[in-house]
Amino acid sequence: MKAEIISIGTEILLGDIVNTNAQYIAKQLAHTGIFVYHQTVVGDNGGRLMEAYKTAFERVDLVITTGGLGPTRDDISKEVAAEYFNKELVLDEDSLKSIEKYVSMTNRKMSEGNKKQAYFPKDAIIIKNNNGTAPGCIIEDNGKTLILLPGPPREMIPMFENDVLPFLRKYQDGVLVSKVLKICGIGESDMEEKIKDIVENQTNPTIAPYSKTGELILRITAKAKDKKEAEKLIKPVEKKIRKRLGDYIYGEGDTSLEEEVAKILIKNKLTISTAESCTGGLLSARLINYPGISSVYKEGVITYSNESKEKLLGVKKDTLEKYGAVSRETAMEMAEGIAKISNTNIGVSITGIAGPDGGAKEKPVGLVYLGLFINGELKSRELFLKGDRQKIRNYSVSHALCWIRRELTCTKRTFPL
Amino acid sequence: MKAEIISIGTEILLGDIVNTNAQYIAKQLAHTGIFVYHQTVVGDNGGRLMEAYKTAFERVDLVITTGGLGPTRDDISKEVAAEYFNKELVLDEDSLKSIEKYVSMTNRKMSEGNKKQAYFPKDAIIIKNNNGTAPGCIIEDNGKTLILLPGPPREMIPMFENDVLPFLRKYQDGVLVSKVLKICGIGESDMEEKIKDIVENQTNPTIAPYSKTGELILRITAKAKDKKEAEKLIKPVEKKIRKRLGDYIYGEGDTSLEEEVAKILIKNKLTISTAESCTGGLLSARLINYPGISSVYKEGVITYSNESKEKLLGVKKDTLEKYGAVSRETAMEMAEGIAKISNTNIGVSITGIAGPDGGAKEKPVGLVYLGLFINGELKSRELFLKGDRQKIRNYSVSHALCWIRRELTCTKRTFPL
Repeated sequence: MKAEIISIGTEILLGDIVNTNAQYIAKQLAHTGIFVYHQTVVGDNGGRLMEAYKTAFERVDLVITTGGLGPTRDDISKEVAAEYFNKELVLDEDSLKSIEKYVSMTNRKMSEGNKKQAYFPKDAIIIKNNNGTAPGCIIEDNGKTLILLPGPPREMIPMFENDVLPFLRKYQDGVLVSKVLKICGIGESDMEEKIKDIVENQTNPTIAPYSKTGELILRITAKAKDKKEAEKLIKPVEKKIRKRLGDYIYGEGDTSLEEEVAKILIKNKLTISTAESCTGGLLSARLINYPGISSVYKEGVITYSNESKEKLLGVKKDTLEKYGAVSRETAMEMAEGIAKISNTNIGVSITGIAGPDGGAKEKPVGLVYLGLFINGELKSRELFLKGDRQKIRNYSVSHALCWIRRELTCTKRTFPL
Repeated sequence: MKAEIISIGTEILLGDIVNTNAQYIAKQLAHTGIFVYHQTVVGDNGGRLMEAYKTAFERVDLVITTGGLGPTRDDISKEVAAEYFNKELVLDEDSLKSIEKYVSMTNRKMSEGNKKQAYFPKDAIIIKNNNGTAPGCIIEDNGKTLILLPGPPREMIPMFENDVLPFLRKYQDGVLVSKVLKICGIGESDMEEKIKDIVENQTNPTIAPYSKTGELILRITAKAKDKKEAEKLIKPVEKKIRKRLGDYIYGEGDTSLEEEVAKILIKNKLTISTAESCTGGLLSARLINYPGISSVYKEGVITYSNESKEKLLGVKKDTLEKYGAVSRETAMEMAEGIAKISNTNIGVSITGIAGPDGGAKEKPVGLVYLGLFINGELKSRELFLKGDRQKIRNYSVSHALCWIRRELTCTKRTFPL
C-alpha cells in the first residue's frame, strides 16, 4: 500500500509554521507498513489543491490531508474533494450538534462558517473532533481513499490515533518495527566508527544514527510480516551493537537521560542536590522533569554571582580570587558545598562561560567545569563546548547528567553509599 | 517569481525527522518576495526524483532542493539533475581540495563517495560548504534554475544565506516585510476579540496571530515594491493594534519576555532572586538566557522539599502545615525569604502541582501559586493551568515573567525602589 500526505495551508508555504503534521503522519504510516513516497504542501487555493489531489491519486490509492477544514472561506479541502469525487456536500446533523456544543463551550457564537464545517461529501465516514470545531472525514470511491483531517496538531493527532489508525488496518500488508537505543558519553563520529561495519552490512533491519544536544540516538528498524517477526530480526543486530557500545547505551525507547539518572538514584536511595552558575537552573529543571524525583532531589541553588557562591555554598574567597569563578577548584567547592548544606549523598555543580561575552584567551567561551561530590569523593571535569549560549548551557547539562550516570553505574561502588 | 521546494530524503518520508529545511527556505523566499506555491518531499529514488523535477519545472521556473548530496550511493540529487538538464558531470578541482581538507580535518579518510561530491553538472555555479563535505550548486538552463543544497541544516543555512540569497536578488519583484508584536498577559480568544475587526478588514498588510506557551505573537505582513513602502503600509495598522492591546504588547521582533524583564531590571537597577519548587529552575534558567542579566540576577534556590523551603527560605513550619506547600501563603513566604536572604529588591517564587500525580480535589494538578516580593510589598497569584507536566511548568514561568513585567511597567512606582 502506498500513500501520499498533502498538507494544506498558506502558513506552511510561507514558512510561518513547521510541517510537523506530515512528520507525525509519515511516522505513523511507517509503523503500519504503509509506504509514503511523496509529501506535498499546497496553499489554500482551489485550483492548485485540485491539481494536488489529481497528481496524488495518479500515483497512489491513499491520500491523507491536513488543514483547510476551518470555518473561514479560505478553508476548502472538503469542497474541492467533493468536486474531485463528484459528490454533493450534505449536512450531518450530529456534527452540527457537536460543533454547536463546542462553540458554546468556548463562549463563542456559531458563525455561518461553523455551519459549513458540518457538511461532508455524500457517504463520507465522519471523524469526530473532540478538540475543535472541524470534524474530519474519509471518502472512499473506486478504490481511492481520501482522508481529510484538520491542521492543528492537538486536534489532528487524537483523531488520527482514535479513528484513522483503526481504519487503516485493513490496508496493512506488513509492519515496520523500530527499536531506539539512547546513547551518551561518546561522540557521534566515535560511535559511528565503532559500529560502521554493522551499519553498512545491514539492510533489514536498517540502523540510523541521530544526534541530539549532547546525546545520540540509534534507531534499528525492521520490516516483516508481523511484529514478532520484526523483533526477531532486530534482536541479533541490537545484541551486536550493545556489545560494541556497552555502557554508552543508557536506555531505550522513550526514556530520557534525566529519567535514567533519577531511577538509579531512587533505586539506590541516593539523594542529590545541585549548584549551578551558567546553566542557571537547567540541570535542576531537567532532573525535576522526572515526576518521581522528589524522593531523592532535595534542593538546588543558582549562584550566579561570586558573592552568592561564597554565601550560599561556602566557596572560599581565596579560591575565587586565585582560580576564578570558572575553574575546577570552584566547581569542586560548589559541589561539596551544596552536598554538605543539603546533606545529600551527591552534589553536582556547573560553572562556565556560556557567552556570547565573558570569554578570554585562557578561558574562552564554551569552557565549562563540572564538579561532582559523591559521599566524600570529589571530582571535576573540564569541557570545551562549541555553539551559542543556549547550546553550551544545554550541552553542559547533558554532560553532567551523563557523567552522574556513568559514575553511578560504571564505577564500582557499594550502595547505599 | 514562483518557486518550488523539493526536500529529498527517505528519513523525511518515514517521519524520522521534521522538515525544518522547507520551512526555513520558504520563510527566506517569502521575505524576498518569491512565492512558494508547492513544497514536495521525495525519497532517495532516481525515478521519483526525476518525476519531481519534471512536475516542478512544469509549474515554476525556480526549484530549490535540499538533501541527496552526501557521499553514499543513495545520494543522487546531482546525478538526476544532470540527467534532467542533459549535462555531463565534471570534476571541480577546487571542490575536491576543499573536501579533502574537510575530511582530513575531521580525522577521516577520503572515500570514493567523497570524490563523487566534487563532480557537478557542466557550467553549474558551485556553492562552497564550509561545514561539511557536500558543496551545493546552481544550474541555469533555458530560463529554468535548479539550486541544489545539502540536507543538514547547519550546512544548508549558511550556504543559503551567503550564496543563495544574493543570487536570488535578481528575481525579486517586490518584498514581503513582517513586523512581529509579542504579547503576554491576555488569552488568545480575548486578544482576537479585541482586534477582530482590524484583522478581518485587512488584506495588505495581513495580520496573523500565533500562540506560544503562555504568550502570543501577532505578525503583520505587507507586500510592496520595496521595504520602505511595505513599512509605510504596516505603520497605521500597527498603531491601531497597539491602541487596542496597549500594555499587553511587551515587545517586537526577536525579543523574548525574559529579555524585556531583564532590560527593565537593568535600566532601573533592580536586583532579583528566585525561589522555585515545581518549576525546578526553569524560571531562573529563562532569566539567565539573557546574557546581560548578571548585573541584577543575584541567586536562586530550588526548594523541592518542605524541609528545604524551611531551611533555605525560612518558610514557617506552621505555614506549611496549615496551608500546605502549594498555597498563597507559602508562595509569599518563599518570595519574601529569597529576597531577604539575597538582599534583592525583588523576590519571585513559584510553587505548584505540575502532575501527573500529586493532585487532589481541592488542589488539582495545574494549581500553581506565584509569589512576588517588591521592596516590602508582598503579592500572590493563583493559576489554574491545563496540560501535561512540562506545559504546566513552562506556563508557570511565562506567567511569572509576564507578571513581573506588568508590575514594573504598568503599576505606578518610583525607581530605584
